Amino acid sequence: MDKKEILDLLHEIRDGKTAPEDALLKMQTMPFKDLGYAKVDLHRAFRQSVAEVVFGEKKTPEQIKGIAESMIESGIDNILITRISKQTADFLLKENFNLRYFEIARLAVINPKPINPVGNVVIASAGTSDMPICEEAAVTLEILGNNVIRLYDVGVSGLHRLLARQEILAKAKVIIAVAGMEGALASVIAGLVSCPVIAVPTSVGYGANFNGLSALLAMLNSCSNGVSVVNIDNGFGAAYIANSINKMGEK
Amino acid sequence: MDKKEILDLLHEIRDGKTAPEDALLKMQTMPFKDLGYAKVDLHRAFRQSVAEVVFGEKKTPEQIKGIAESMIESGIDNILITRISKQTADFLLKENFNLRYFEIARLAVINPKPINPVGNVVIASAGTSDMPICEEAAVTLEILGNNVIRLYDVGVSGLHRLLARQEILAKAKVIIAVAGMEGALASVIAGLVSCPVIAVPTSVGYGANFNGLSALLAMLNSCSNGVSVVNIDNGFGAAYIANSINKMGEK
Amino acid sequence: MDKKEILDLLHEIRDGKTAPEDALLKMQTMPFKDLGYAKVDLHRAFRQSVAEVVFGEKKTPEQIKGIAESMIESGIDNILITRISKQTADFLLKENFNLRYFEIARLAVINPKPINPVGNVVIASAGTSDMPICEEAAVTLEILGNNVIRLYDVGVSGLHRLLARQEILAKAKVIIAVAGMEGALASVIAGLVSCPVIAVPTSVGYGANFNGLSALLAMLNSCSNGVSVVNIDNGFGAAYIANSINKMGEK
Amino acid sequence: MDKKEILDLLHEIRDGKTAPEDALLKMQTMPFKDLGYAKVDLHRAFRQSVAEVVFGEKKTPEQIKGIAESMIESGIDNILITRISKQTADFLLKENFNLRYFEIARLAVINPKPINPVGNVVIASAGTSDMPICEEAAVTLEILGNNVIRLYDVGVSGLHRLLARQEILAKAKVIIAVAGMEGALASVIAGLVSCPVIAVPTSVGYGANFNGLSALLAMLNSCSNGVSVVNIDNGFGAAYIANSINKMGEK
Amino acid sequence: MDKKEILDLLHEIRDGKTAPEDALLKMQTMPFKDLGYAKVDLHRAFRQSVAEVVFGEKKTPEQIKGIAESMIESGIDNILITRISKQTADFLLKENFNLRYFEIARLAVINPKPINPVGNVVIASAGTSDMPICEEAAVTLEILGNNVIRLYDVGVSGLHRLLARQEILAKAKVIIAVAGMEGALASVIAGLVSCPVIAVPTSVGYGANFNGLSALLAMLNSCSNGVSVVNIDNGFGAAYIANSINKMGEK
Amino acid sequence: MDKKEILDLLHEIRDGKTAPEDALLKMQTMPFKDLGYAKVDLHRAFRQSVAEVVFGEKKTPEQIKGIAESMIESGIDNILITRISKQTADFLLKENFNLRYFEIARLAVINPKPINPVGNVVIASAGTSDMPICEEAAVTLEILGNNVIRLYDVGVSGLHRLLARQEILAKAKVIIAVAGMEGALASVIAGLVSCPVIAVPTSVGYGANFNGLSALLAMLNSCSNGVSVVNIDNGFGAAYIANSINKMGEK
Amino acid sequence: MDKKEILDLLHEIRDGKTAPEDALLKMQTMPFKDLGYAKVDLHRAFRQSVAEVVFGEKKTPEQIKGIAESMIESGIDNILITRISKQTADFLLKENFNLRYFEIARLAVINPKPINPVGNVVIASAGTSDMPICEEAAVTLEILGNNVIRLYDVGVSGLHRLLARQEILAKAKVIIAVAGMEGALASVIAGLVSCPVIAVPTSVGYGANFNGLSALLAMLNSCSNGVSVVNIDNGFGAAYIANSINKMGEK
Amino acid sequence: MDKKEILDLLHEIRDGKTAPEDALLKMQTMPFKDLGYAKVDLHRAFRQSVAEVVFGEKKTPEQIKGIAESMIESGIDNILITRISKQTADFLLKENFNLRYFEIARLAVINPKPINPVGNVVIASAGTSDMPICEEAAVTLEILGNNVIRLYDVGVSGLHRLLARQEILAKAKVIIAVAGMEGALASVIAGLVSCPVIAVPTSVGYGANFNGLSALLAMLNSCSNGVSVVNIDNGFGAAYIANSINKMGEK
Repeated sequence: MDKKEILDLLHEIRDGKTAPEDALLKMQTMPFKDLGYAKVDLHRAFRQSVAEVVFGEKKTPEQIKGIAESMIESGIDNILITRISKQTADFLLKENFNLRYFEIARLAVINPKPINPVGNVVIASAGTSDMPICEEAAVTLEILGNNVIRLYDVGVSGLHRLLARQEILAKAKVIIAVAGMEGALASVIAGLVSCPVIAVPTSVGYGANFNGLSALLAMLNSCSNGVSVVNIDNGFGAAYIANSINKMGEK
Repeated sequence: MDKKEILDLLHEIRDGKTAPEDALLKMQTMPFKDLGYAKVDLHRAFRQSVAEVVFGEKKTPEQIKGIAESMIESGIDNILITRISKQTADFLLKENFNLRYFEIARLAVINPKPINPVGNVVIASAGTSDMPICEEAAVTLEILGNNVIRLYDVGVSGLHRLLARQEILAKAKVIIAVAGMEGALASVIAGLVSCPVIAVPTSVGYGANFNGLSALLAMLNSCSNGVSVVNIDNGFGAAYIANSINKMGEK
Repeated sequence: MDKKEILDLLHEIRDGKTAPEDALLKMQTMPFKDLGYAKVDLHRAFRQSVAEVVFGEKKTPEQIKGIAESMIESGIDNILITRISKQTADFLLKENFNLRYFEIARLAVINPKPINPVGNVVIASAGTSDMPICEEAAVTLEILGNNVIRLYDVGVSGLHRLLARQEILAKAKVIIAVAGMEGALASVIAGLVSCPVIAVPTSVGYGANFNGLSALLAMLNSCSNGVSVVNIDNGFGAAYIANSINKMGEK
Repeated sequence: MDKKEILDLLHEIRDGKTAPEDALLKMQTMPFKDLGYAKVDLHRAFRQSVAEVVFGEKKTPEQIKGIAESMIESGIDNILITRISKQTADFLLKENFNLRYFEIARLAVINPKPINPVGNVVIASAGTSDMPICEEAAVTLEILGNNVIRLYDVGVSGLHRLLARQEILAKAKVIIAVAGMEGALASVIAGLVSCPVIAVPTSVGYGANFNGLSALLAMLNSCSNGVSVVNIDNGFGAAYIANSINKMGEK
Repeated sequence: MDKKEILDLLHEIRDGKTAPEDALLKMQTMPFKDLGYAKVDLHRAFRQSVAEVVFGEKKTPEQIKGIAESMIESGIDNILITRISKQTADFLLKENFNLRYFEIARLAVINPKPINPVGNVVIASAGTSDMPICEEAAVTLEILGNNVIRLYDVGVSGLHRLLARQEILAKAKVIIAVAGMEGALASVIAGLVSCPVIAVPTSVGYGANFNGLSALLAMLNSCSNGVSVVNIDNGFGAAYIANSINKMGEK
Repeated sequence: MDKKEILDLLHEIRDGKTAPEDALLKMQTMPFKDLGYAKVDLHRAFRQSVAEVVFGEKKTPEQIKGIAESMIESGIDNILITRISKQTADFLLKENFNLRYFEIARLAVINPKPINPVGNVVIASAGTSDMPICEEAAVTLEILGNNVIRLYDVGVSGLHRLLARQEILAKAKVIIAVAGMEGALASVIAGLVSCPVIAVPTSVGYGANFNGLSALLAMLNSCSNGVSVVNIDNGFGAAYIANSINKMGEK
Repeated sequence: MDKKEILDLLHEIRDGKTAPEDALLKMQTMPFKDLGYAKVDLHRAFRQSVAEVVFGEKKTPEQIKGIAESMIESGIDNILITRISKQTADFLLKENFNLRYFEIARLAVINPKPINPVGNVVIASAGTSDMPICEEAAVTLEILGNNVIRLYDVGVSGLHRLLARQEILAKAKVIIAVAGMEGALASVIAGLVSCPVIAVPTSVGYGANFNGLSALLAMLNSCSNGVSVVNIDNGFGAAYIANSINKMGEK
Repeated sequence: MDKKEILDLLHEIRDGKTAPEDALLKMQTMPFKDLGYAKVDLHRAFRQSVAEVVFGEKKTPEQIKGIAESMIESGIDNILITRISKQTADFLLKENFNLRYFEIARLAVINPKPINPVGNVVIASAGTSDMPICEEAAVTLEILGNNVIRLYDVGVSGLHRLLARQEILAKAKVIIAVAGMEGALASVIAGLVSCPVIAVPTSVGYGANFNGLSALLAMLNSCSNGVSVVNIDNGFGAAYIANSINKMGEK
């Protein structure tokens, strides 16, 4: 409910079209649907310009189905479900949802609606093992209508692999840097470019990486300017931010 | 040295204007000046569109003076020095530098050159004690030519203070959320807006805040989309990123 | 054995009704039954006004059966068993116990005896995934005779969901706030109400949530007054405290 | 602004006494005063039944003076200032504030107004070194109008000191247990009573106590029911909660 | 090789009974047998008065068999194997070893030789779940020839259970206190007795117990004198120390 | 109050020599003196065979004076004060206490009473910097009447220094091993002897020693049997335990 | 591409043999092959004198096959694959690779080419459980052409086992010290020798070893000079370094 | 005492030149001098080819003087004292020691004896603030007779500064990489060279660098091969190792 709607409502009261008591009730009626186990936020597209995203992990197939149905009823397209297993995706397909599944990215889209891609987001990763996180970011960005360039396995142990792609980095509007272990990729890339770098630490590694802590701390302490950090393995989160940056000034 | 310069150089070789040995030397000559204790990067303005920033902490007044002089010689204006004490600023003023000092922000600018401010960056803070970090961000942004709105002391313990300013938040192109203790401000703001939120955890608090760890972890684990995080107390870092986001699509 | 009982006993000695040696023995006889693997505390209902609660985790079905039997023999009703699997509950049902099982809450009650509910406890949760912890709290409270209002999935990423329910919060005598990730819900609720808020951090989340540490630290560092915290995922513990607060001043 | 006030306002609109535009403005006018560096919350006494508390740490004497003045102007009494140094208190006294200072507790009250004490709060501490935290809690409670019993230096290394006071514990409506080192006091007390126990871990100790972490973890993991925990050294926070519990059912 | 043996050897050289070269060789011959994957220490009984103990975890049944055989060949009895699974014990029984297995304690003894028990060791535990660790300690002590009294499930949440047994504690020569969660048992016991208390933190608990860290820190920070601590879940280690203390002054 | 005293009291009741009400009072009268800020435990010498030890840190000279006076009044000698500064010791000397101060050990004894030393405790340290902790242990032990052998600066980086003293180690009844950094000394010593080893991790070192954490963890994870651990820098705690072990079987 | 190659290329431009545009392209062509999921580095043998090593963990058999094939095509022998399961090795054997598998070390070599071993590397381990890490190091070193001496199960709990081998240690050119638990082995060895010691902490142990943290911290804080440390369980990493040290001065 | 000396001694016994008892005594006489507070190791130059190094921190000027004097008496030159303040150095100069002091490196050498430098060690650092650690390493190496090249302020935020020096890196026999913050320098350098890289994490940085933990973890988790790590800020330790590597194969 935005300011204008409230003012309209207040005018209706003045004009006697709505009783004060009814108005109060209306103002308290929230733009979400209560499923008991979840309160589906149907107005977020207006509030945040991105459709409701369903975090699939730890939700049952039935819960996801219920949430999706209430969103479809409200006329929402391009419903993104993250961290969803192949089993759940198959269940939804059997239930006749119009769904597309991305296995490596563990993502699904219900009622996909192609959006004309704009801008230029580069996703760079340190190693092959970071790929699921990268793809989570890449597919999310593509669904939300962004041009994405993948630059995988360009970790700093072989710097020439990255330097050979410097031109690609230079043209990016925003870069997502994905790395586990010592997470140095974010610092090195941020030193080469002038656009924002979203760093995603991954849990790739072993021993004293403490499930991604080493990369997380490294990225937070980057000696290069321009690096901000999201949670460990949070490819979706990085994509969400990159999307809103990438669309600035685009039409 | 960009691609065009290299190609030009190669053409000079082909045309016999430059000997191959000289060209090799030239290609190895780097755009930085070596002061012994520091290698001042004079071309960064081209590479990253922001002038070299001098991190003042743990540098002697003499070192800062030397670095500043070599930058001025190269014709650089608007030289930003972060984490600089009043003592060092006074020393530089006595040495006849054209310097402006910001005490709360612990920032100085040498040869300040007003830039027409563009865009709209909001800096929101949870409490009064977060002010030095906020001002470090605010002054940096203003020097780099951004419109800045300060929204201080709007922590979640009195939510109405923040909600009363929702319109200001809604108009921001990028928001910097500064908070110590439980760092909830970043999540609450990000739930209200659609622009990127740069979260700055501060060391404000005591006991189990572990010098900012509580706010840092909270911000990394935000349930709201759109939050990325910089190091604890890193107001400058947040401003640097906000600057590059805020200028997208601006002329 | 309370002060009066001791005094009575001492009078019996004076009056020659009890020999000093017997009295000493009696004073050492403790109101618990020793099963070898467990010392069942049969007088706790007097001492703490809540029946003995059996922590079911890591106990074998046989051990739970033995403990329950000795309690039933002592005439105890409403025996609460927490963290009990469906398998163990089924085993006890087959052994002819009068048992009611709550699957999501992983709770069982033996010889349930309805208690007239009093007061008003609100349980608010940040997301759907926090539900098992919420239900552990809710069912415990209901068994102990409290009115419970469930307010699930009202996390701070969509603040309007919570603000729409402000009236419910305002009427609570005590509130249990359950949240994982950045745990901001506790601070936001405590800023809106004047009653005590028991915060339950959950292990919901991933990466830098470190199995609930992020929410735990956030809740301990709440900028709002009125928040106290129990162990990660400890829904029962929160309910136990809420019960004793909720019953104050009730008859 | 509570529900009734809004309804009244809506009725005024209907009755033509207030223009819709003015009403909107009124609804947006917040009950706080903006001092620039702080937004003083003047309605909190209504919202939370406790006057605004000023967290004195890291605020300059001038800032505290400014905040206090705006509160006095709004007619607020019994203004509590926590973590305030003797120097700042002396400064305020010289500025002619009607102030009472508690040195061990590091607390001050401006315009103290005696409140008839009710209920019964016991504050138990493990050792002499925990005294500043205990007194912060005790004085806060007394200012807010609670009967307080101090039970200091009753740590578990000499259990008889605590057991000799069992009757005092048994009569408490709520207990604050303050302990550093291994923090066992909270568990032992909670095992003896049926009322809620607010545990305050302190940073008292050395080595592997890690500035209060040992006591904090111990209290969160209490094997006794009824213990909830506040931040390390947070005597005020515990008192705030104890106050609201202690006043339940009192008139 | 003790001092006397060396002196004897030197006398043999002087008397021409042993060539210097042979003596050097002899002095380098170590009292252990090299199995390739393990160097079995056959003289430890002399050096440390306890037979070699085989840490069974992560060793294959074949490796354990090989080690045991080489010890039997050297005439060693009462060979203790810790952390050995039922499967491995069954394998050794089939291989005709004279072996006794203790299932809860996960311990086995090969060629058990009854030793007349001396002294008085009390093993006290906080809860039923600590039993495997307690039994590891208890059985180890019994095999090494100590009188053991088990005092299980006497945690501080029901202090009377412990106080009822104070006489048993008072007679102990050394006490092993086993507890998870907040580990308060060690402090409480040490406050009641004058003998050494060996504290064993266990990983029993959940959430912020961080796999035994809470109990470990609590025990290290005990406010009671006389507590020393072994590794988390290290029942054997505590028994080893208790054995050597308990045998002091015994014949 | 021991069992016999209670029985005597009960007999007095039976014989009409004491009224039941008076007996109850007597049983509740505890053997400690309440100074307000401290409850001095005057019967500990009976209960724990060591006089009350005053932990001097964070106590004012006046508080220490008060505690000492109440102990002297009760006829206690050999009052040990740990972690006491030279300033406080000088204050007490001026107040005419019969006090002996040990500067390196930061210990004082009031009314020292020589005790005939028995047994044999060895204190071994890794480096010269561990000396204050070693001396805290050594002086405590000597005051309590133990023979002490100091073996300082025998760290494992020069193993021959330790091996040259093996005979001394072999004759010890109990050994205190004091080490910072990697804390290996405890493991090496425990591998050479059969008596109990009390390990004291110290905060000596820098960087990743994390104020003694490295030595603490190393000692808790010792691969040698017979090592138990006290808090970081807790020389007194180790001495207390070593005293009770060393006196076993002595007359 | 080294300096000489660049100079040659520049001469070709001058001499008109290569067009500037072609030269630029050539300079950008990197010596790696892009497989999409991986960028195989074919020139590393020149750059680092060791063939590309494939980190097998978390790669599918097909990915490993693809990487191996592209290396074989480039004429690379002695391709080392670390952390490869028996299943994957069997898959590659079925695909007709010339492969040798080392089960304990979890290593494979494709197209093994015997290299004449040089120098002298000693691998010492604390216990039998450290063997997989030791063998990873040992086999790697042997494949790279080093003489390796294995000294397993020489932990400090039985120092004589290590001292008996002092001559072997003295002759080593570099030593790898592998230990879990308290990791003291590295310090003890480094105190006995003058060559570099590469310390490998292992995750062997339990409880407060925190998956290798105890050994890691101990090794980083070694009181002996000459110890440097690699990641927990990183046998390959230690071998890689030992190889380059061991070959210094060898022909 | 090496093997030959022992054999000689045994021959003397056989030939009646030395009594067995005297020989035993001689074998026990250790090559160190006992100063009470320190055991100075006078034979280390033989055992480890580097003279005894005195760790100056936490030693009094008098203790350092005493240690130095006993070393000089034994004819040792080039005595290195690390972490020594200017004050202590001045004290020693006044005491007429032949001492050279290095202020930035906080190092002193007594009786310096020039050694002909050999080999080639490169010390690379990320920033100007790392300089004290770098110089501690550089001066140590120069005193021990190594050629040292300093490459300071070449952090990865401006990669061209490092790449411009690639030739210098390529010629190094061993490299010391010194960096705080995210410590990426070690990984980037190790990816460019084939020699061993000793990584020194520094405590330079703030916030989530946790006094060097971020750089330490990053270096331990390096994705590049060839990196081993020493303690935070341990410039001397890195130099000690680099010295022994650099001298391999040199004459």
